[in-house]
Amino acid sequence: MYIVIVGAGDIGMPLIDIATRSGNEVVVIENDPERADRVAGQYDCLILNDDATAHDTLQDAGIEKTDALISTTDRDPTNIMVCLLAQEHEVPNIVSVVHDPEHMNVFRQIGVNTMENPQELIAEYLYRAVARPAIVDYMRIGEKAEVFEITVTENAPIDGKTLIEAADDDLLPEDVLIVAIEREGEDPPITPRGNTRIEADDLLTVYSAFGAEPTLTDVFGHPEDRAE
Amino acid sequence: MYIVIVGAGDIGMPLIDIATRSGNEVVVIENDPERADRVAGQYDCLILNDDATAHDTLQDAGIEKTDALISTTDRDPTNIMVCLLAQEHEVPNIVSVVHDPEHMNVFRQIGVNTMENPQELIAEYLYRAVARPAIVDYMRIGEKAEVFEITVTENAPIDGKTLIEAADDDLLPEDVLIVAIEREGEDPPITPRGNTRIEADDLLTVYSAFGAEPTLTDVFGHPEDRAE
Amino acid sequence: MYIVIVGAGDIGMPLIDIATRSGNEVVVIENDPERADRVAGQYDCLILNDDATAHDTLQDAGIEKTDALISTTDRDPTNIMVCLLAQEHEVPNIVSVVHDPEHMNVFRQIGVNTMENPQELIAEYLYRAVARPAIVDYMRIGEKAEVFEITVTENAPIDGKTLIEAADDDLLPEDVLIVAIEREGEDPPITPRGNTRIEADDLLTVYSAFGAEPTLTDVFGHPEDRAE
Amino acid sequence: MYIVIVGAGDIGMPLIDIATRSGNEVVVIENDPERADRVAGQYDCLILNDDATAHDTLQDAGIEKTDALISTTDRDPTNIMVCLLAQEHEVPNIVSVVHDPEHMNVFRQIGVNTMENPQELIAEYLYRAVARPAIVDYMRIGEKAEVFEITVTENAPIDGKTLIEAADDDLLPEDVLIVAIEREGEDPPITPRGNTRIEADDLLTVYSAFGAEPTLTDVFGHPEDRAE
Amino acid sequence: MYIVIVGAGDIGMPLIDIATRSGNEVVVIENDPERADRVAGQYDCLILNDDATAHDTLQDAGIEKTDALISTTDRDPTNIMVCLLAQEHEVPNIVSVVHDPEHMNVFRQIGVNTMENPQELIAEYLYRAVARPAIVDYMRIGEKAEVFEITVTENAPIDGKTLIEAADDDLLPEDVLIVAIEREGEDPPITPRGNTRIEADDLLTVYSAFGAEPTLTDVFGHPEDRAE
Amino acid sequence: MYIVIVGAGDIGMPLIDIATRSGNEVVVIENDPERADRVAGQYDCLILNDDATAHDTLQDAGIEKTDALISTTDRDPTNIMVCLLAQEHEVPNIVSVVHDPEHMNVFRQIGVNTMENPQELIAEYLYRAVARPAIVDYMRIGEKAEVFEITVTENAPIDGKTLIEAADDDLLPEDVLIVAIEREGEDPPITPRGNTRIEADDLLTVYSAFGAEPTLTDVFGHPEDRAE
Amino acid sequence: MYIVIVGAGDIGMPLIDIATRSGNEVVVIENDPERADRVAGQYDCLILNDDATAHDTLQDAGIEKTDALISTTDRDPTNIMVCLLAQEHEVPNIVSVVHDPEHMNVFRQIGVNTMENPQELIAEYLYRAVARPAIVDYMRIGEKAEVFEITVTENAPIDGKTLIEAADDDLLPEDVLIVAIEREGEDPPITPRGNTRIEADDLLTVYSAFGAEPTLTDVFGHPEDRAE
Amino acid sequence: MYIVIVGAGDIGMPLIDIATRSGNEVVVIENDPERADRVAGQYDCLILNDDATAHDTLQDAGIEKTDALISTTDRDPTNIMVCLLAQEHEVPNIVSVVHDPEHMNVFRQIGVNTMENPQELIAEYLYRAVARPAIVDYMRIGEKAEVFEITVTENAPIDGKTLIEAADDDLLPEDVLIVAIEREGEDPPITPRGNTRIEADDLLTVYSAFGAEPTLTDVFGHPEDRAE
Repeated sequence: MYIVIVGAGDIGMPLIDIATRSGNEVVVIENDPERADRVAGQYDCLILNDDATAHDTLQDAGIEKTDALISTTDRDPTNIMVCLLAQEHEVPNIVSVVHDPEHMNVFRQIGVNTMENPQELIAEYLYRAVARPAIVDYMRIGEKAEVFEITVTENAPIDGKTLIEAADDDLLPEDVLIVAIEREGEDPPITPRGNTRIEADDLLTVYSAFGAEPTLTDVFGHPEDRAE
Repeated sequence: MYIVIVGAGDIGMPLIDIATRSGNEVVVIENDPERADRVAGQYDCLILNDDATAHDTLQDAGIEKTDALISTTDRDPTNIMVCLLAQEHEVPNIVSVVHDPEHMNVFRQIGVNTMENPQELIAEYLYRAVARPAIVDYMRIGEKAEVFEITVTENAPIDGKTLIEAADDDLLPEDVLIVAIEREGEDPPITPRGNTRIEADDLLTVYSAFGAEPTLTDVFGHPEDRAE
Repeated sequence: MYIVIVGAGDIGMPLIDIATRSGNEVVVIENDPERADRVAGQYDCLILNDDATAHDTLQDAGIEKTDALISTTDRDPTNIMVCLLAQEHEVPNIVSVVHDPEHMNVFRQIGVNTMENPQELIAEYLYRAVARPAIVDYMRIGEKAEVFEITVTENAPIDGKTLIEAADDDLLPEDVLIVAIEREGEDPPITPRGNTRIEADDLLTVYSAFGAEPTLTDVFGHPEDRAE
Repeated sequence: MYIVIVGAGDIGMPLIDIATRSGNEVVVIENDPERADRVAGQYDCLILNDDATAHDTLQDAGIEKTDALISTTDRDPTNIMVCLLAQEHEVPNIVSVVHDPEHMNVFRQIGVNTMENPQELIAEYLYRAVARPAIVDYMRIGEKAEVFEITVTENAPIDGKTLIEAADDDLLPEDVLIVAIEREGEDPPITPRGNTRIEADDLLTVYSAFGAEPTLTDVFGHPEDRAE
Repeated sequence: MYIVIVGAGDIGMPLIDIATRSGNEVVVIENDPERADRVAGQYDCLILNDDATAHDTLQDAGIEKTDALISTTDRDPTNIMVCLLAQEHEVPNIVSVVHDPEHMNVFRQIGVNTMENPQELIAEYLYRAVARPAIVDYMRIGEKAEVFEITVTENAPIDGKTLIEAADDDLLPEDVLIVAIEREGEDPPITPRGNTRIEADDLLTVYSAFGAEPTLTDVFGHPEDRAE
Repeated sequence: MYIVIVGAGDIGMPLIDIATRSGNEVVVIENDPERADRVAGQYDCLILNDDATAHDTLQDAGIEKTDALISTTDRDPTNIMVCLLAQEHEVPNIVSVVHDPEHMNVFRQIGVNTMENPQELIAEYLYRAVARPAIVDYMRIGEKAEVFEITVTENAPIDGKTLIEAADDDLLPEDVLIVAIEREGEDPPITPRGNTRIEADDLLTVYSAFGAEPTLTDVFGHPEDRAE
Repeated sequence: MYIVIVGAGDIGMPLIDIATRSGNEVVVIENDPERADRVAGQYDCLILNDDATAHDTLQDAGIEKTDALISTTDRDPTNIMVCLLAQEHEVPNIVSVVHDPEHMNVFRQIGVNTMENPQELIAEYLYRAVARPAIVDYMRIGEKAEVFEITVTENAPIDGKTLIEAADDDLLPEDVLIVAIEREGEDPPITPRGNTRIEADDLLTVYSAFGAEPTLTDVFGHPEDRAE
Repeated sequence: MYIVIVGAGDIGMPLIDIATRSGNEVVVIENDPERADRVAGQYDCLILNDDATAHDTLQDAGIEKTDALISTTDRDPTNIMVCLLAQEHEVPNIVSVVHDPEHMNVFRQIGVNTMENPQELIAEYLYRAVARPAIVDYMRIGEKAEVFEITVTENAPIDGKTLIEAADDDLLPEDVLIVAIEREGEDPPITPRGNTRIEADDLLTVYSAFGAEPTLTDVFGHPEDRAE
């Protein structure tokens, strides 16, 4: 793809890293000379040290043949102006970071794809790290359901049981599913069957229609997570 | 919990929001007077406008009874100093944001829990939004496996088929699992059985041992994702 | 009317002056504290010293009952964000200053009324003051036609002639019209008839289908205007 | 003409644009290096990055052969000093922007032509755009008279009538004159006669000795303009 | 007198000191808050912390009843604007510091009294202190004549001689006059007669039609002044 | 002479001008790069853009062969340090500007020649210009005596009188002396005798043992100077 | 004592700490408001937030009754001005920090006691910490002699020997003296006699006329110190 | 040794001076370009103008072969991060300046050698210079004992006595030892015997188990030191 990235700040930099490593043709527009220099020194891409809200800059960036434009500056008004100009040039794929959640609507209204609450995403991860340390990673499904990764501790209720035994002991309610088991020496993860036996230190991917409730995480041996 | 949050910047602010909303007792330490004022005006928590690397400040923050400290400033050296001081006061749960990936090791060495590459996380999401627009959300499982959310388009190969029919047609390989189905009017998501029929506009949660490969996303009707 | 004015800078200030003097209910949003203070001290209006791109500020400004919003900040991205938010609140009448002419299109595209090239307007007036000093004021009609004010000098070809005499002498082509005559001691301006006599020092309002051409301004006694 | 323009700010830039496009020999004096560079890159003129209140600078600018000098800086004291120095060098045509209306007198006193209230001009236009949206453009004649452009709406009282009929119906008072009619496909504008018929969508140039009063604009079908 | 002093900088401060000590009613206008505060704390006068080029400020300063206005800011354009406004208010006595010697003419042209080259005055004194250290103080009379103060050294040619003897010995040419003699214990200075005897350590006030030439200063015992 | 001038500010610049024009070998030390450049571009002298309180700088300036050093920076501490270092290098002639009158003593104590109160000197001149406008120039002799220049107005008591007549009429007290008369067309000034007649418009150099008292200035026709 | 400390920076702060703790009456003069506030909040002393080179400030500080003044600002010119003013007020004891070693002479010349090279002192300690880590503390005596503290390591040549035995074994040359022995549980340090036995872990105070040479430090078991 | 010095500020500069003069291979890391330039111009060492907390910088500095790293920046968090990174690279000898005494513990905890209170060291010296001016230099031994240098004044009690006589007269208590005598013309210092005679102006190195008490300094003729 031919990708234009606007802004080479805290978010723009790793984005440039990913986009160039993935073999795309990348153009970066960054107004600040120091940041622009830093990009030029590190990545193999065209870097324009200019104002992205100026037509000339977008022209120079090759906006006519751009497949995707990602606006990552830390000012929402700048991001929206850039997106509108990109729309004018009929860029097929436009994404923007949005800093003030109350501006989400405006971006949607003009039809721009947005990254929902980047800082909140990080904040949520940090919070979980102290509030639910047993949960290694997770993903929300709708309002309450969750897929999450959790390690089985020694002597946890489920330790040493097959899935069928676990279900028989009422350890796993109906709307909970063990999706995958990461286990030392096994790659890819094990896709569990009824007779697959759960062991201590297994890293489970679990789906729960009601989320990672304490009653559920207890099953995997993390009573401390109830402390919240 | 009694939580001390150091830094009320881009990451600290939503963290304070989550932590206070979750009913914790929260103390915020922020050196910048403007930011400190902003917190004071918005959240119900103790806010100290002071240098978190000074013992007196930590004392005032009630460091002795703190359950968890989260350091979110944008300077790694400050974060590490804060974490070391927190260790000196035997705070049981210490987490820090780390900005330079090469500093990860140092934090680990002194035994501090870290948030891995916050900006990279956002950058990855943004990149996916343009590179694989069909994937609504996703979570990596180990090296290659993934859980992801994807919408079924009208006339997609799987549209109108039951899971059994889909398997019969070799649409879903063995190590792929439809974990849940979000459908207009259904809450919680449907836990699919063999005879559950997939419909256009269903938002599927899918587990794939080999990730969201184009051959797989094609099944749900997103050939454009092959363009990467 | 209930008018919200965003920005109290070089353009915003006289606008506030006009809008309050005309008996409207005016709310001013200005981010800079000094400017906000200056307004508060001078005009009878509500002044909000806040960021106009924040929903709370617009709420406080009474956006729901606003008849018209005029955005006058010197940053186009800020103006466009403000206009989009005003649209979200269904403000019936939205106008914005636009600084970069190349941004005109974007404002039009989202349906916002704009002030065309404010600086260019002034620049044009200044230029005319040196290039055509005889023209006191003027207004363009379509591409080439103009209405303009011009003083009659002593001994100008038209000095002392009635309109009929002037026409007879071929001084006034067919598509030129003397619209009004401002003369010392006459108020309102004289609406000229065929037998109205033009005198030196009359300030004429003239319509010309081909503009204020030198051949025409000569008639009123301003040969120097040919020097351009 | 040989024109010296002092200041390349918001007003100076479009002035340079007009003056160079009109084929004059233009010299620009701008103290700020960045602005000076911007001009140098965009226009074909001599640009001096220097203090215009220094004799040397004016000498370099060719003040001895200058036909007109226009001072556009945003500081009135600088403008007046520049104008006085230009008078010393007997520049025949000197114009200045004046920012503080109370300084007008001082400029007049030393015999310098001024641009009356540039910001107020813009402000007035903006205000009209919300207060009298039907008026497309206008020009004040003396205290109360006005020439203005207005569109005829479908079913307006005057729609479909000749000027004579309109007069008969008392739609147009005596001191109101339809000066010109811009109509799709007609160029130049039509100079109306008594039997010229007004149609919807005509853009009329109207002279009114008592201004664009609501009773008058009603005739052209804009009752909403009464809302002021 | 009722005196308005504009500017409380390096020159303004001692001026305020002199003017208040001499029993005048003094008003000071100074834009810089720190400087304004310093004046307020030290002198018994009205101090306005405001822009002297604004009519309101001058009004507040009582410009209508002002006997004299002295403008001492370090910007010539500001000084000239202040002087022009003072002229508008018919202040009878207006003086200004001028920094750029090439602006002298402009001040003269508008009829403002100026302080000629303040820095040059100091520079000249400093230079004399190293170039002609024997000259304690001096005043130029026309092009070449000078009145100067000089000390008589022990064994100088004139030491111990009466004025008549000095003239007889051709020590004092015809167009040189000993105006006064300051001598320890004598107050006021001695007005010399023909038989007054000059002594070592006398501080003489000398008038010379050809200035303080080395041949003349030698007479008072300062051969080193020839070194220039 | 070989002169080192420290500081190229408001006082240093004209000093450099005088010193170079008088044919001396001049070295300038100025810390500020902009000021140093300005000197380099204007005067024929060695300019060191460096800190004058560093031994190396003084060495580079040729301190060992310096005849005179003049310190003109606007910081007394810097001036005193420079003077002390110059003493260490046995510069024979050292002069310094002193800004705070209370520092005079300290400079004297270490044996440095000083310029007494530069700003006060200017302030005094300015004050005189408004308080005693008749006095064109003047020089203090001891506590009260003065030499001053004053113009004779038409019809002044002394107008048309010889010195003897003036003395007879008691116009000139005993301790007042007309030292010289500058008169249109006479060069050098006239050295007056008893029968020299004073005329209107003569510019007199007058010595008065009791200063330029109103009773005395009245004689030359300046009653307005009594207004003080 | 009544002590005036000028400057509350990096050196001034701990000095204020020592001086107040030792029961002196302390006055601090610090120009920077923030620093002044910090002192006011921490120490029991009079703090003047003012310029120490102003007579008024010194007066307020009670300079007339001051026993000692210590100038610690980081600008040598300021320090020297303060010291000269203190001399003028006959402060009996004046000490100053000197930053540029080449200014030492000037301070000595005016008779001010100085702290020799404070930063160099620290630098030397730091350097020793890496170059001769065995030396705990040390003091230079004249050019080469040193008193130093060193720990005896297990199995060092001197470990377990009496001083007489050590001398007999030629371990301690004649001009080396064990001055004191700090040993766990002994307070004050042991004053050694001929039969005092040296033990491992003793912290010895050693005098050596030829310094802490490697041949000598070897005796106490630190061969690694030879590595320099 | 191969030494890396981080920071070229007030402490870093003289350290670089010592380290390079002592023949080590020195690498300096300094973030500030001006400081880096200053080092480059003065010392023969590798200078990296970069952030020392970045792995690349340490790599460039040759961290793998470094014998000792000394961190001298004025920010403790930066110092600690640098030290942790140096530990990661197994630098054998790591020393840091610590600014906040309360951070000492943290440095110790991670096993880094520190310079104890550099500013306090200087402050103590300064204080002694005014509080005990007789003490030329000194070194603390444990809690109370001291080695100090003191000059013998004329007619001091010990002046002219041998050590035995002094002991007989009870001038020197048992736990006081004259360690060395610096005397004009003697080099190295004299190692005193019982019959060595003390003379006025001798600079004695004295060990006292109870410190430099006034009763002891009296013996050497400094009663004024009691004044504290």
